[in-house]
This record gives sequence, structure tokens and C-alpha cells, in this order.
Amino acid sequence: MASVPSVSYSITVRLEVPAGGRAVSQITHVVENAGGIVTALDVNTAGHETLRIDVTIATRDTEHAEAIATALERIDAVKIHKVSDRTFLMHLGGKIEMQSKVPLRNRDELSMAYTPGVARVSLAIARNPEDVRRLTIKRNSVAVVTDGSAVLGLGNIGPEAALPVMEGKAALFKRFAGIDAWPICLDTQDTDEIVRTVQILAPAFGGINLEDISAPRCFEVEARLRELLDIPVFHDDQHGTAICVLAALTNALRVVGKDIGSVRITMAGAGAAGTAILKLLMHAGARDLVVCDYRGAVHAGRDDLDESLGWIASRTNAAGYAGDLRGAVKDADVFIGVSAPGILTGDDVATMKDDAIVFALANPEPEVSPDEAREHAAVVATGRSDYPNQINNVLAFPGVFRGLLDAQADGVTLDMLAAAAKALAEVVTPDELGPNYIVPSVFHPEVSTRVAGAVREAVVALTPGQGHSPGGSHP
Amino acid sequence: MASVPSVSYSITVRLEVPAGGRAVSQITHVVENAGGIVTALDVNTAGHETLRIDVTIATRDTEHAEAIATALERIDAVKIHKVSDRTFLMHLGGKIEMQSKVPLRNRDELSMAYTPGVARVSLAIARNPEDVRRLTIKRNSVAVVTDGSAVLGLGNIGPEAALPVMEGKAALFKRFAGIDAWPICLDTQDTDEIVRTVQILAPAFGGINLEDISAPRCFEVEARLRELLDIPVFHDDQHGTAICVLAALTNALRVVGKDIGSVRITMAGAGAAGTAILKLLMHAGARDLVVCDYRGAVHAGRDDLDESLGWIASRTNAAGYAGDLRGAVKDADVFIGVSAPGILTGDDVATMKDDAIVFALANPEPEVSPDEAREHAAVVATGRSDYPNQINNVLAFPGVFRGLLDAQADGVTLDMLAAAAKALAEVVTPDELGPNYIVPSVFHPEVSTRVAGAVREAVVALTPGQGHSPGGSHP
Repeated sequence: MASVPSVSYSITVRLEVPAGGRAVSQITHVVENAGGIVTALDVNTAGHETLRIDVTIATRDTEHAEAIATALERIDAVKIHKVSDRTFLMHLGGKIEMQSKVPLRNRDELSMAYTPGVARVSLAIARNPEDVRRLTIKRNSVAVVTDGSAVLGLGNIGPEAALPVMEGKAALFKRFAGIDAWPICLDTQDTDEIVRTVQILAPAFGGINLEDISAPRCFEVEARLRELLDIPVFHDDQHGTAICVLAALTNALRVVGKDIGSVRITMAGAGAAGTAILKLLMHAGARDLVVCDYRGAVHAGRDDLDESLGWIASRTNAAGYAGDLRGAVKDADVFIGVSAPGILTGDDVATMKDDAIVFALANPEPEVSPDEAREHAAVVATGRSDYPNQINNVLAFPGVFRGLLDAQADGVTLDMLAAAAKALAEVVTPDELGPNYIVPSVFHPEVSTRVAGAVREAVVALTPGQGHSPGGSHP
Repeated sequence: MASVPSVSYSITVRLEVPAGGRAVSQITHVVENAGGIVTALDVNTAGHETLRIDVTIATRDTEHAEAIATALERIDAVKIHKVSDRTFLMHLGGKIEMQSKVPLRNRDELSMAYTPGVARVSLAIARNPEDVRRLTIKRNSVAVVTDGSAVLGLGNIGPEAALPVMEGKAALFKRFAGIDAWPICLDTQDTDEIVRTVQILAPAFGGINLEDISAPRCFEVEARLRELLDIPVFHDDQHGTAICVLAALTNALRVVGKDIGSVRITMAGAGAAGTAILKLLMHAGARDLVVCDYRGAVHAGRDDLDESLGWIASRTNAAGYAGDLRGAVKDADVFIGVSAPGILTGDDVATMKDDAIVFALANPEPEVSPDEAREHAAVVATGRSDYPNQINNVLAFPGVFRGLLDAQADGVTLDMLAAAAKALAEVVTPDELGPNYIVPSVFHPEVSTRVAGAVREAVVALTPGQGHSPGGSHP
């Protein structure tokens, strides 16, 4: 799929070659000729007459990796001992672990952390339930919940196969916001059971991050849990994406000098992400929107409107445009795609207004080739790391949950998502802002703290009794 | 409750006293006079004329701690700045955390641990489901599951108040066996819902440790989950206790030179622990048993026999003894209590056979005063850390799960529990064995590895296709 070698398809090959020859240069030459990129090379002696060489190579995909290994094997007098896949090596035994924060070196420490001392702490919580957020992990823990029904672009691969993704998500929570997340992979895809299960396991968690649950079930799961629980429920595929898109659009509009209230926005994709983006853009002031799905523009006259599409039809596309995506893109200021690869061409982008903005977020193959789009649009963003302006949810969810947990929020509102987007956009300074820098790097040191701060303030502002009116509608 | 000061009721008091006087000796004197024990004392200067003293004091209970603080306050010219409870300080913010095992320092590492690289790992598991134990945390993770209905001796305090105990348990899993356990505190006490919830969240775990679920629901929960799941289900209150009791009894019988097949054993307690102990003792060869509950001996003629009591009545008390516990203890070789405080006296123990063995495991107040029991019995064990022979489940569950996970066991059998008990008993060498040393210390470095090794061997021996017949009955 990937057109250029990537470390995520990176292998390490252990070779044995005769000492003293030109083996090393021959090896790098063969790798490069085969289209691979040597990213590391370690040479050790192995006996008197041979060298052992570990060479790490970024490749395009599994077939490419195999082709390179075969090419290396054809070199005279070279023996291949082992080919390791670096990504798989990284996953061996899982990517996360549980650690005790308290020492358990002797009987005294045992008696404080566990029985009999722990009984007093449990009693304190039984008497004053609020203390659970002070005396347990609930203050900092998030359940990463999936049913394995829509994992990355892989589809319905089930809860076990989803686990590496959820572990990765948990690792990102810690890395970027110090949050203790744990994967919960559900062996059911029944909406009622998912809702009830999450409700039942909520007591030990301070927040719920729903992940990779397919539409339209994800809407109902999230909406019902929001009603049932007194901790925030966040669906990253919806809300995380929406925050990043609004932040990126805010800065892209600054680059071209347009206003969100007056631009025409055409969207491709009416699933979980598309719907959430739509709601947050409207909350932020967008007024002129047309949403397309695989059947074309969503409009009130369509005979296939379910609850979600009906909601979209009643609030967008005031002119009742009933054509296809291509027609909807014509004269639009902004295109936002969270749909399918290759559904637009550079020529379509050329029909947009001047200083067009194109967010082609289908992954790994965008809705339109970024290279073609850039010939006609002023700002182009994708979900890929090998182009500028990568829209990556890692920019949002760690900071959002940090803020929600710190404020002990009992829910998430559109105001909080909008505050997160605003803070994320503002991490990019006026000096830095430009067509190729509308969102900060995920490694920018201030991203999660500034998003967290904005969310915390939004929670406080919306909490009754803080002197502000509870103005937040649900996302 | 506790009659002697304990670190689990330990406070740290910060005092300010005039420099140069006899303040320090006065403070220790006052603490000791009030019945407290000074366990640490740090003196710092605080300005020219005063000293700041942090004194840590083991107390009997909360009231005692307050009395000591008040006594200190009465010393002339002493000011109390702060009284901290060390146990509560240890619990602030929770006792466990999630850690990433993989570095996420740059874009390359992100792309291997998360998207796009993780997609290949997920696909590999989707194609070969067995790989979930190789490429994820499932190989080393245990869910510590409770409904908060029978937490320690505190009763039905609910899932939030149970969380500090479950965190402690998770910390012990790591400390003693390197296992990654995570607390799952269920907001339901309905048997069907507990079973279904655990079944639904099983995919990401390699084992289930049920904890502090009240009888008789715990029996049904465990039995049904055992049928439904392909990972081991262990109820520590039952099976962990049973392993420790069998190990301790094995060694106690060695001390007095009696054989398990010929001794009369009287038990008090027919709940979760009692029933599990009974089953394991019978599996190990015990034949002459009488079990008592609060209504007296369990026998076939009772009109209140539910399924569990009926099972006991049909397999024990062949003589049909229908009297009370006191009568059942007469002429018994062994008494094992997992019931209520103070239900027997030293005089009752005196009616037992010579070289009697008394395990009075009710906590924190045993069935009979250990001091009184020791006047008449050859070997006495309790659940308390302030007497010799502490029967502590920490001796069993970490090693048991280590063995089960390493062997990728799909269940737990009585043979595995018996193997664990045998290994635990054998950690005590013939030289060390004596009336006051029938079980090793929980900090003995070989306990969990030897228990794990025995369990692993038992799993392998019981696995079909390994050349052995699957001979294990369920516990």
C-alpha cells in the first residue's frame, strides 16, 4: 500500500559474510537497488574468517521485505541467519504493563498497602464515596473500550486482534498525558450488551474512551453511556477527529483569510467521524455545509435517511443539492473527506473556489492525491505522516482526557471539544503559521498541557454552582 | 480491634518545639506513656529558636492515634503542625499505574507501536488467533474482579470502596510474580450479569481472579465462568485459602507425625473458603471430616440444606453427628476455622486429641485465642501477622497464576491446586520445620517460583496430547 519505504515495515537481517571483502558496500548496494533504505548497520566479528552483520532496512511492505531478503541471499558467499520484523519484535509480550507505585519490601509496607491497613481506606470510601477520586486510581484511569468491529482500516477483526491497537492507545495516553489507561476488548457486538458492560465496569475508571466501534452502533453506545454514567465518555474516532479537524480548519482559514461563518464546506463521509466533525464545525459557526456519502449529497428528499442522515439532511444543504460529490465540491471553499480513497482528482479540486482548503483524511490512501490537490488548493492536509499537515488524533485525546480527569468532569460537551480545538490551533504561533504548518507536531511539548488547560477551564465554566450557566450541549 | 500498636495504624506528626531543650526525650516519653511506639523521628531546624520534628508513631487504632496527638499537644511550648496518616498517604492517587514497555520518542517509534505498523500485528492475530498470547499483554494479564459484596471483613461496601483492596491485590501480583493485573470493580451484584460481564471482557486477559464476592453467588459465578471461558478462573477466597491451608496442614501433620488419611478434622465455616478447603483436603486424602456452620454440624438430617450444604452433608460426617461445634471439636485431631471470632475457648481445645492442630483463621479476631490454644495444641496457626504461622493467601495466588499463565492453561483443576500446596509446603525444609514454622514467610524468595513451577508441571501433565490423561476434576 505504502509507496515509499517506512520504518513501520522495517526488518533486521542478520548476515554472515567473509571477512576482508567488500561485503558491506555490496550489501547496502543490493538493498538500495531493491528499493529499500538501510537505517542501521552493525558489524561484529564471528570467528576468524567471517563477519556477522545486522542490517536494518525500511521496506514498503511485506512482499518488498521478502524481495530484499531474497536479493541479499543471492550475493556470493553471503549467508542469511535470521530476518526479524522490527514491528513484531516491539509487540512481543505486549506493549504495556502494570506497575505498583508503592513499595512492598517488608511486612509493614504490606500491611499498609493491603490487609489490614487497606480496610480503613475502603471504609473511608464507603462512608464518603467522593473519596474514591482521592484514594484510588479512579482519578487518573481511563478504560480504552472496543468491540473490535471497526479496527483502523481493517474492519471487523474482533476483540483479540484489536488488542495491539488498544495497547498502543494506552501507551499514547501515558506518553502524552500521564494517564493510566487499560484496554477493555469486548467479546460482544450487541449494542445493549456493550452499554451495560461498560456501565458495570465504570466504577474503577475516571473516563471511558470508546475506540473502533462501527457506525451506527457507536452513536447509540456513546449517547446511552453519556446518559448513564457520571464520568466522561469520549469516542475518539468521532470527537478526537472532530477536534483535530476544527483546529486545523481554524488555522487553514487564517492562512487564506476566510471566515468559518461564510465559507462553503463540502464533506465526504457521513459515518462516525463525519457526523462528529459536522456537529463541531456547526457549533463553531459553520453555516454552509453539504455532506456526501457514497450515494451522493445528503438531502431531505432522499428515501434512505436513517436517524443520523435525517439529522444531517435537516441541518445542512439548505439548497437541497441532490447531485454527486464532484458537483458538491464545485465552488466550495473547503473540502473535508473522512471517507474512501481516490474519489476526487486534481481537476475536481480545480473547480473549487480560489484559496481552497482540502483535508483528505482517508488513510492510508487519501480521497485525492495530496500532490494533485496541492496544485490547485492553498492548504492541503492528510492523515499521513509523510506529507505536511498530518491530522492525527494523538494531538487531541491525551490532553482532552487530562483536562477532564483533572477537573473531575462528569461528562463531555461540545463547548469542551471546541475549547480543545481552539487551544490546539493556538499552539501554532502566528510566526509559524503557513500553508504547510496548520497543526503542531504531536511531539510539540505544549500540545497536551494546553489542550488540557482549555478543557479544564471549560469544565469549570460549565459546572453549575461555579457562577456560570451550564451552557454545554452534548457532542 | 488490634490489641497492640501496628504500622497499619501509623501516623506522622509534625511538631515545632523550642530549640535546645529536652523536647525530643519528652516527646518519645509522652508517646510511650500513651501506649504508642515511635518508629521514626526526624529533627530539622526551623529558624533560630525552634526545631521541627517529624515523629512517626504506630498506634492501635484511630481513637488511639487521636489520643496520642492530644497528649503531644499538651506538652509545654510544643505546637502540632500536621498529623498525617501513613496508610492514607500511601493510597493517595491510587497504588498502581500503567506503564508503556515501548519507547515513543519519535515518529518512527510511534509508527511501529501504533498506526500504521500496529495494523500488521492486528492482522496477524486475526489470521492466527493463537498469536494473541504472543503479541499482546494477554500472556501476562489477570483481571482482578470483584462486585464489592464481601470485601475483607467489611461486608457489602460496593465496588468503589473495594477498589483500594483490588489495587493492593494487583500490586501483590506484580511484586511476587511479575504479573500485570488490573482491577475490575463491577457495579452489579446479579450473578447472571457478573458472569456475562466477565465473559465479555475476557479477550484481553490471560486469567480471571475473582475476589471478595459473597457466598453462595461466588460458587455459581466461578462454576459458570469455568465452563464458558478458555482461560483459568480462580477465586482467591476459595482456592488461594485452600492451597495455603493444605500446605500448612501437610507440614503441621509432619510436625506431630500424623497422617491426613487417618486424622479427624473438624471445620468451622461452610462458606466460600470452608467449602473450597474441604474439597482440597478430601482431594489430598482426608476422610474423617465434620463441618460446622453457625447452626452446628452439617449432617444429612438437617432441613436447611441448600446445594452446597447438601454436598457437604453427603460427603462428610459419616456418623451423622448432629450437635454443636464444641462437641465436634472433642477428640478431633485438627480444627480448621474460617468462620467467626471467639467461638471456642482453650478448654475446648483441651478436649481435642493429643498433639492437636488448631488453625483459627478468622481475621482479625481468631475463633479461639491463639495464646489459649497454644496451651493445649501442638501447632497453632492464624491469619494474623503478629503470631507465628500466618496463613496468608499471598503465599499462593501469585505463584499459581504465574504457573497458569506460563503454561497457557485454559482452566484450573484440583490437581493443580494440590500441586501448588505441595510445593508451598516443601519450601519449608526439614531443618526449619517446627511447631512455629509450618509455612514460609511471604518474602521467602522461592515461594512463588516453586509454586509456579509445580502448577506449570501440573498443567502440562493434564493437557491432552502430552501423553497424559486429563485426570483433573474441577475445584
